Amino acid sequence: MNKSPDRTEGRRIPVIEIFGPTVQGEGSVIGHKTMFVRTAGCDYSCVWCDSAFTWDGSGNADIRPMTPHEIGEELRRIGGETFGHVTISGGNPALLPQLAGLIGLLRERGIRVALETQGSRWQDWFWSIDDLTISPKPPSSRMETDWTALDDIVAKLTEKQRLFSLKIVIFDDVDLHYAAGVHERYPQIPFYVQAGNDQLKEAEPERLLPYLLERYRWLIDRVMEHNGLKQVHVLPQLHTWVWGNKKGV
Amino acid sequence: MNKSPDRTEGRRIPVIEIFGPTVQGEGSVIGHKTMFVRTAGCDYSCVWCDSAFTWDGSGNADIRPMTPHEIGEELRRIGGETFGHVTISGGNPALLPQLAGLIGLLRERGIRVALETQGSRWQDWFWSIDDLTISPKPPSSRMETDWTALDDIVAKLTEKQRLFSLKIVIFDDVDLHYAAGVHERYPQIPFYVQAGNDQLKEAEPERLLPYLLERYRWLIDRVMEHNGLKQVHVLPQLHTWVWGNKKGV
Repeated sequence: MNKSPDRTEGRRIPVIEIFGPTVQGEGSVIGHKTMFVRTAGCDYSCVWCDSAFTWDGSGNADIRPMTPHEIGEELRRIGGETFGHVTISGGNPALLPQLAGLIGLLRERGIRVALETQGSRWQDWFWSIDDLTISPKPPSSRMETDWTALDDIVAKLTEKQRLFSLKIVIFDDVDLHYAAGVHERYPQIPFYVQAGNDQLKEAEPERLLPYLLERYRWLIDRVMEHNGLKQVHVLPQLHTWVWGNKKGV
Repeated sequence: MNKSPDRTEGRRIPVIEIFGPTVQGEGSVIGHKTMFVRTAGCDYSCVWCDSAFTWDGSGNADIRPMTPHEIGEELRRIGGETFGHVTISGGNPALLPQLAGLIGLLRERGIRVALETQGSRWQDWFWSIDDLTISPKPPSSRMETDWTALDDIVAKLTEKQRLFSLKIVIFDDVDLHYAAGVHERYPQIPFYVQAGNDQLKEAEPERLLPYLLERYRWLIDRVMEHNGLKQVHVLPQLHTWVWGNKKGV
């Protein structure tokens, strides 16, 4: 066995971006002042992924294998004394058992940790995340949801009474139907839907914003008339309204 | 004594608007699908109040004294079976002890209740609100905070372990300094700052939005560099981005 806990803890984390402080743009932590640590690698390849550089090879030159200590130092160097919240995103950070070390280090320093993953893989460190978002991918992504894996994750978190939220990105009515099904399956879990952005090549925030507004209004209209979506938050991807498709903000 | 509990319960509620379902535009419930019940009357007169018609006399013709049952019926008539969340706003709804009856009726129907107030008055029904936002007003409002009243409200909610949040609308650096003081005074309470809108006469959403974006970016920049504001959410007033200054959305 090569995967003893000790070897796992010592393994380096493939980091592709560290930036902040900035505001969280999505879901239950929308608006929260946070630093971002983005990990490389994903088991999915969503057709509209806004961070495809984490898994399609185009960002390989930026990947750095880092220890938790090195990540902690870099966060401090960039963020100084301004922050108390770190978001770990990907790619799918749930592919990395060795994140346990980083999460432990941050929490020892009194820093809250947020993490987003699609709900395809479990890690025991899910129980240690302060703001955990599980974001299953709807049909427009061309991915298949592994309901057994998702049921298992929801059950494990629920049995330890961990608060977390579900978030679905919506591009069309088929996605909305999928979202309503997820909400019906897990009615007690705080539920967020987010208007998707499929204009990833648009470099001008001023041209992007009217489109995003229209998509958000469309999603609001569809959810408002929907009897099956009552305890639901409808949100934009706030950072794209403010900064467009720019990376690292 | 004219104010026996029974007389209070039976007293009608001065309602000035009922509308929805729509999305909450502010604070910890941002994006939540909700119905709105807006009450008339306020002990404050903030210079930038976006609902001055609730207290400056201009909306008097719209005020209807309603029973909880009548409000419940009207919510059902307008919202049908689409909603499970009602937001009570004002004015200052905390002036109205008789809201207890409405809050009880809604919760009996399985509806979550949100309420926003400035924290100048206590009501025992604060303990029954699912999503309570206390929003003290900063210096730009020209109002004076009653710190004794606010301390008392925070203590009463905290002692019964009720979750609630603090939200401060920010127009300038003096307001931001005030907000940092509130956060320092109550560091354990989830804390939100919101970019203020002082263009209340602008009727065109397309002209308003660039201004609101600029104000939001300004607030983000100021909070990001601030060492005293770590566990903080920085949010826009989302509904003004989507619908401008239009009422009833």
